Amino acid sequence: MPCQVVFQPSGRRGEVSPGTNLLDAARQLGVAIKSPCGGTGMCGKCKVQVVTGFFPKLGLESSPASLTPLTGEEKKYLTEDEIQNNYRLACQAMVEGDVLLAVPEESREVDQVILTARVNRSLQLNPAVRQYRVKCPAGSLADQRSDWERLQQALKEEYGLSGDLTLAYPALLQLPAGIRQQGGEVTVTTWQDRVVLALEPGAGRRPLGVAVDLGTTTVAAYLCDLATGEVLSTASAMNPQVRYGEDVLSRITYARESATGLAELHETIVRGLNELLDQLVTTARVAREQVMDLVIVGNTAMQHLLLNLSPDYLGQAPYLPAVREDLNLKARDLGINVHAAAKIHLLPVIGGFVGADHVAVLIAEEPYRSDAVQLIVDIGTNGEIALASQGKVAATSCATGPALEGAHIKFGMRAAPGAIEKVSINPDTLEVDYKVIGREEWASAGRPAGARGICGSGIIDAVAELFKAGVISRSGRFNRVLPTNRVRRNKEGKMEFVIAWAGETAIGRDITITQSDIRAVQLAKAALYAGARYLMAHMGVERVDEVILAGAFGSYINPLNALAIGMFPDCLPEKIRAVGNAAGDGARLALLSLEKRQEARNIARQVHLVETSLEADFQEQFVQAMALPHGRDAFPHLDHILKLVPRSA
Amino acid sequence: MPCQVVFQPSGRRGEVSPGTNLLDAARQLGVAIKSPCGGTGMCGKCKVQVVTGFFPKLGLESSPASLTPLTGEEKKYLTEDEIQNNYRLACQAMVEGDVLLAVPEESREVDQVILTARVNRSLQLNPAVRQYRVKCPAGSLADQRSDWERLQQALKEEYGLSGDLTLAYPALLQLPAGIRQQGGEVTVTTWQDRVVLALEPGAGRRPLGVAVDLGTTTVAAYLCDLATGEVLSTASAMNPQVRYGEDVLSRITYARESATGLAELHETIVRGLNELLDQLVTTARVAREQVMDLVIVGNTAMQHLLLNLSPDYLGQAPYLPAVREDLNLKARDLGINVHAAAKIHLLPVIGGFVGADHVAVLIAEEPYRSDAVQLIVDIGTNGEIALASQGKVAATSCATGPALEGAHIKFGMRAAPGAIEKVSINPDTLEVDYKVIGREEWASAGRPAGARGICGSGIIDAVAELFKAGVISRSGRFNRVLPTNRVRRNKEGKMEFVIAWAGETAIGRDITITQSDIRAVQLAKAALYAGARYLMAHMGVERVDEVILAGAFGSYINPLNALAIGMFPDCLPEKIRAVGNAAGDGARLALLSLEKRQEARNIARQVHLVETSLEADFQEQFVQAMALPHGRDAFPHLDHILKLVPRSA
Repeated sequence: MPCQVVFQPSGRRGEVSPGTNLLDAARQLGVAIKSPCGGTGMCGKCKVQVVTGFFPKLGLESSPASLTPLTGEEKKYLTEDEIQNNYRLACQAMVEGDVLLAVPEESREVDQVILTARVNRSLQLNPAVRQYRVKCPAGSLADQRSDWERLQQALKEEYGLSGDLTLAYPALLQLPAGIRQQGGEVTVTTWQDRVVLALEPGAGRRPLGVAVDLGTTTVAAYLCDLATGEVLSTASAMNPQVRYGEDVLSRITYARESATGLAELHETIVRGLNELLDQLVTTARVAREQVMDLVIVGNTAMQHLLLNLSPDYLGQAPYLPAVREDLNLKARDLGINVHAAAKIHLLPVIGGFVGADHVAVLIAEEPYRSDAVQLIVDIGTNGEIALASQGKVAATSCATGPALEGAHIKFGMRAAPGAIEKVSINPDTLEVDYKVIGREEWASAGRPAGARGICGSGIIDAVAELFKAGVISRSGRFNRVLPTNRVRRNKEGKMEFVIAWAGETAIGRDITITQSDIRAVQLAKAALYAGARYLMAHMGVERVDEVILAGAFGSYINPLNALAIGMFPDCLPEKIRAVGNAAGDGARLALLSLEKRQEARNIARQVHLVETSLEADFQEQFVQAMALPHGRDAFPHLDHILKLVPRSA
Repeated sequence: MPCQVVFQPSGRRGEVSPGTNLLDAARQLGVAIKSPCGGTGMCGKCKVQVVTGFFPKLGLESSPASLTPLTGEEKKYLTEDEIQNNYRLACQAMVEGDVLLAVPEESREVDQVILTARVNRSLQLNPAVRQYRVKCPAGSLADQRSDWERLQQALKEEYGLSGDLTLAYPALLQLPAGIRQQGGEVTVTTWQDRVVLALEPGAGRRPLGVAVDLGTTTVAAYLCDLATGEVLSTASAMNPQVRYGEDVLSRITYARESATGLAELHETIVRGLNELLDQLVTTARVAREQVMDLVIVGNTAMQHLLLNLSPDYLGQAPYLPAVREDLNLKARDLGINVHAAAKIHLLPVIGGFVGADHVAVLIAEEPYRSDAVQLIVDIGTNGEIALASQGKVAATSCATGPALEGAHIKFGMRAAPGAIEKVSINPDTLEVDYKVIGREEWASAGRPAGARGICGSGIIDAVAELFKAGVISRSGRFNRVLPTNRVRRNKEGKMEFVIAWAGETAIGRDITITQSDIRAVQLAKAALYAGARYLMAHMGVERVDEVILAGAFGSYINPLNALAIGMFPDCLPEKIRAVGNAAGDGARLALLSLEKRQEARNIARQVHLVETSLEADFQEQFVQAMALPHGRDAFPHLDHILKLVPRSA
């Protein structure tokens, strides 16, 4: 007997089999519930509330008994109050009867604020896909050459294209009619001047390309005119795979543990990309069929899932990818709906945890061409850092955990409307000002500001400000004797600091930073810091000249506060710069330049991948790096920095 | 209001829209009715009879008034008797009400007798698809190379395969799991040692290939073990496109004139090939997925239709193909259901009317390696001839018309059970012995032998025998003063000769050879003869040393009778040989040998294609060649031949 399940406030309803957990039920009914841990009971973010009673219009009676009993995981993540009020974790509770559920706002997935490209780098246009207009001579009884032979001759005579050209199958189908309209005038689209992809009579439509930065959380895409390099439109969306788990490992686990998991994840991202393509071409008022080339960059796991390639072994030691080389595929083989002969280029990867997105960052920033010692910090859902010195590059991935993305933080959330993104604490009064995404003005105590949680940049600010105001010590522990009710012990007996009072929020609860939140930030920053130190040791470098923050996160954080808590080794504050979505920029460059693809191939093989888990003393280094900041010795500029940090940056 | 249509004796029934002609109705209901002209009212072969009356079990009343009125075309092809008995041409009569139809046996498509390979040529096995078994080393944290890099290294070290190997997309998907079972032992299948097509843990299954001779009428396929060259099974079937027209031009017309015509023809042959593949693998008890490579040869039009490539321009001067080069495609792009990464190789074509099937004949027979002057005559649904002398080859196509296939002949039929395939006429009594396909023994007057018509070889025999017996003159005209009732004037006032009396047949009517049948044979043989003469003139050759008859038809005809009527230039009778399905043999050779593919490429470009329509005096030569035989001068061996021809060859 299937059970009726209804989710409020969306009102989505349907039947599911008994034994289905509420998270799966929500997916089936199209209700987006947060599940950063991938439904493993590890994050406590998927809270839902059972609404009890008889609902004649819905034709169902709902009660807590419609679900399986409370699990140990749930008892860990739910407060006494929540348990009293019939809150459950959606991933834990299984349906046993009809049930009506309320999804609290904090559990709902919401649209993402994302960064669009902001660096317009100059390069010599040399795209893989090019167009040639030629006049194909007509045949005759005396000239028995085929259509293709005559066209090849014209391409050779007019443009010097070699006789080794081949015809893609879809182009072959267009050939006979294509060269017999418009008096033989025809526009030929080639890939690397080796394959004819398409053929149109007359002038033909301009060929377009799409560069995609396929992030674990966000997908950003750029539609470009391949003949001019111009960006015609951009679009971005949340990676729709997030409902299978917010981080890479949750998705790898889902792919492995569900029989159809890999296929679901693959189809989900392909559908997502097709929807983004819809947006791109609609905005630019062009036809999908004009898209002849795509460059997609993502981390190694995202690439595996895009390819429908099992990421199982990426998640197990020694964490090796199936392929590291760049790949040229046909869009139709992946189900990407563009021109039937369109190509997809995937940049090479460096290793299982340093992927093609990082290679894209490198070819965008070109640290190997700089005279300065550059540290590139790319904090997405994973942290990857690279250090370049004298033309050489070393890279490593850092197990930052998802704290900097707002996950595993009590009131953590992604950088979405309602998130507290900046925090400033008055060291004298310990009063708080903060800025909420979606509002222009800063908020201060007592005024409603619609906050729903804190995102990564707000968390870094909060920890730095708490440290600078003396609320927490260098070890990260709370100073318990302070003249403010903002510092308190919560119901679980843990210390916390109130950033926003319930009345100022959209969720009706105090938004706090807890002792364990501070610990999570310390773990994340220690991973980055220790990783950077290893790269420096590996390269024999004493100091970093410049720090480049790549990715949306890097653009939102206050670099001085990041430096103040010791997220990366000491550096002159003015030498820290955020470059935005450098991975997307790198993808665009590879779309427009074969030389950049070659550069990517070269650098991916030259980068030395430092595997910190192989280093004997890594654990010790890591623990040392937990302090706020990492000690005066390592921070000769600290006083300078602490002075520079503005109260409202 | 849809109309009920029922076909007997099959009993197939269904609803069709008013205005549907009976041929289309039959196709929709899966009833196979002959339509050599492609439903254009030009052949009169699609006769069906309206059964009148009320049929309570069928719930319909059927009458001649359920169809549109008799057309002019029908009056041409139907006798008075047939019109009286409500016979109609299925392609002309359109449904206007419920109707019950009887399909006479002579109008039904029947299974084809076809020839299986009989020449086992020896060659150095060097297939495009090969297998290698290697042990792929495991990775480690210290060895960060990808799965693919490690596999490439193993293939290089063990087999010297170059580092330029690429991975087909389906093989990529098999890679991570494939190398992690069986301790890294893996079987790798490559194409031309350039692309890895597949990957199986452990020993893997042996790779198979299929060679296909895609004829206009018949499709023959051979399943081969690519490692040994052994033929595991063979299968053949009628080309299912025949219901859209028996000859090439009818199908080109259908593809052009119907909006979905090309797609229908393409899908029909793809479905047909998939069914043949089913047979092949079922017989050999192997898996479809083992088939990794196919070589398909057909005439240029059949190749276009297989490719879903418009054959429009093949049917219009200057009759040029889209491509002449050989093509390498993916089976999945054409919808051929074998291994996901399987390849298809199409041999090159020589011109619009001399196709890859002829190239296959050439690489099987290798006339360019012979010291003798060889004439290769390949009479399928089209006639193609090639002449080789001193390593050079010239070829042409001959507009034989379909007479030699039994079409456009009053009682003509294909070489199927019930066809009179051999005829012998006693020059003294003018009595006839004949042999019917499907019966071991020869038949003679008065004994029922189940004949349903005459096929090509029977027609050639009949004309030769009538000539030798003095019934027809050298010009092909009947000698009207003869002591036999077999020579008579028919209802239409035309002379004819009775081969089989009604009582001996399965169709209850006298089977005759008419004056216009003889004229059709003369036209066909004149085309072949004049074509051969042109090739000889072109090559500066006076005499032909050897005649090679390729194709099923060449195997069935009595070569001495063919020589007697002057189908090809004079040659010592013992130097004429039939080689069976040489096109299929050539396809098999190309499947098993890359050198043969190269040989095909070379020969296709070296063959001189003689376009007889460009020759000023061709018409005159052609008319002269109509005589039986083509004059003593050209036939120094004629007396010898006439003496040699046995009464029952």
